[in-house]
Amino acid sequence: MVIVSKNEEDKNMTVLQGDERLDIIRSKNLSIIQSPSVFSYSIDALLLAEFARIPQSYKSNIVDLCAGTGAVTMLLAHKTRGNITGVELQERLANMANRSIKLNKLETQVTVMQEDVRELSEFFTHDSVDAITCNPPYFKIGDSAVNPNEHLAIARHEVYLDLSSLISEVSRMLKMNGTFFIVYRPDRFLELLDELRTHHLTPKRLQMVYPKIGSEATMILVEAIKYGSDAGFKVDFPLHIMDNNGNYTSKMKEIIYGES
Amino acid sequence: MVIVSKNEEDKNMTVLQGDERLDIIRSKNLSIIQSPSVFSYSIDALLLAEFARIPQSYKSNIVDLCAGTGAVTMLLAHKTRGNITGVELQERLANMANRSIKLNKLETQVTVMQEDVRELSEFFTHDSVDAITCNPPYFKIGDSAVNPNEHLAIARHEVYLDLSSLISEVSRMLKMNGTFFIVYRPDRFLELLDELRTHHLTPKRLQMVYPKIGSEATMILVEAIKYGSDAGFKVDFPLHIMDNNGNYTSKMKEIIYGES
Repeated sequence: MVIVSKNEEDKNMTVLQGDERLDIIRSKNLSIIQSPSVFSYSIDALLLAEFARIPQSYKSNIVDLCAGTGAVTMLLAHKTRGNITGVELQERLANMANRSIKLNKLETQVTVMQEDVRELSEFFTHDSVDAITCNPPYFKIGDSAVNPNEHLAIARHEVYLDLSSLISEVSRMLKMNGTFFIVYRPDRFLELLDELRTHHLTPKRLQMVYPKIGSEATMILVEAIKYGSDAGFKVDFPLHIMDNNGNYTSKMKEIIYGES
Repeated sequence: MVIVSKNEEDKNMTVLQGDERLDIIRSKNLSIIQSPSVFSYSIDALLLAEFARIPQSYKSNIVDLCAGTGAVTMLLAHKTRGNITGVELQERLANMANRSIKLNKLETQVTVMQEDVRELSEFFTHDSVDAITCNPPYFKIGDSAVNPNEHLAIARHEVYLDLSSLISEVSRMLKMNGTFFIVYRPDRFLELLDELRTHHLTPKRLQMVYPKIGSEATMILVEAIKYGSDAGFKVDFPLHIMDNNGNYTSKMKEIIYGES
């Protein structure tokens, strides 16, 4: 599929380049430029965007860290009239994300900046952001084979950003009582809780994601509130990706296709 | 229903007294003497016994704290040839539990002692127990109205035993790498994790229990290992009590009735 802009000046910003393809998230009528050689958004991104409860006001300031191709960043636009900024380290991904944003006509509300999460102090001051989402690299260096493709290695492994640095930066940027939403792996759950609490982000809500009926959880979604109280921790209903027949469950169909 | 022992000497130990009734856990063919005026075992006990993975050897030493009517204590006998000791503070409950044990002919393997969990040092030395289960009082004094019935108040509220004292005692008794299994409430999940780790019990496995499809979790089951490593935390498949039609799910039927 080739998308050609009507405006010749926009051509470089909107056409698919090289091995890129266009994926559609039907439930939100969102087009996302993807490339197998860099990084593709996956179900994690859809679930994180679904899980996040962000302020709706046009005055709100929302940040999506480790934005990748901008799937979460753009999906959040369905939940708020506020300003949404994605932050993505990799230039190629940030470029793809911004072309997708134009394609979806979201450029007045959504931007993805190419920047290192550890270097955001000149763009976001202390206590300035209302809500932050993040689908971070899951794996420690050394925990599993690092992908020889550098783009994929950076997205999946803690090559440039470890959990502690990420959470520290989240805590710095968030306003008092600001909310943070993260998708992570169960095997690092305790470490995640520790890092959150060390940085004054109180875990408040948890949702487990199971690939199929009867299997262990493979993802966890956590909501934390900056300087929130310890009382009232909640565990949301569980999400199953596949049913016993290997089809998406009705909840997943709703999230992906907008129908159940 | 009245059960009369064939042996007249055992009569006081085996008959139902006062308002007592006999409940049957069909899946394990277990009879349990219950009374509405003291405390009845509930689904929590069945799930805790199901969740616990205890050593099978006849040399193993298993302890069930806050034993109540002995439901968990007796259910564990299906999982091990080892020695099982229940500990219950309330004399009436310990008496009922021991009569149930005789009724089920488990007295060579299972006993319930009437004792305060905080006073166990003369019965169990340091590092002497292989596995411990506990279905403790869930509620802090002050968190919700304390039941005017003293028996129920002690079982449900931290009248005599708070979480910290319990976990401290569990850690003292357990052998190195011994396992602890507890059923608790999600709203005190963070506190539970903190107490476990403060006392060198590393959380390793978690299972969430949801009353029905689409609802928040109302119970959590946690396995911890004394001086276990932090790596490899797992989240077991979720348990739903009721299906969409208000019937037990097939998994619950299996646990309660032994069929699915």
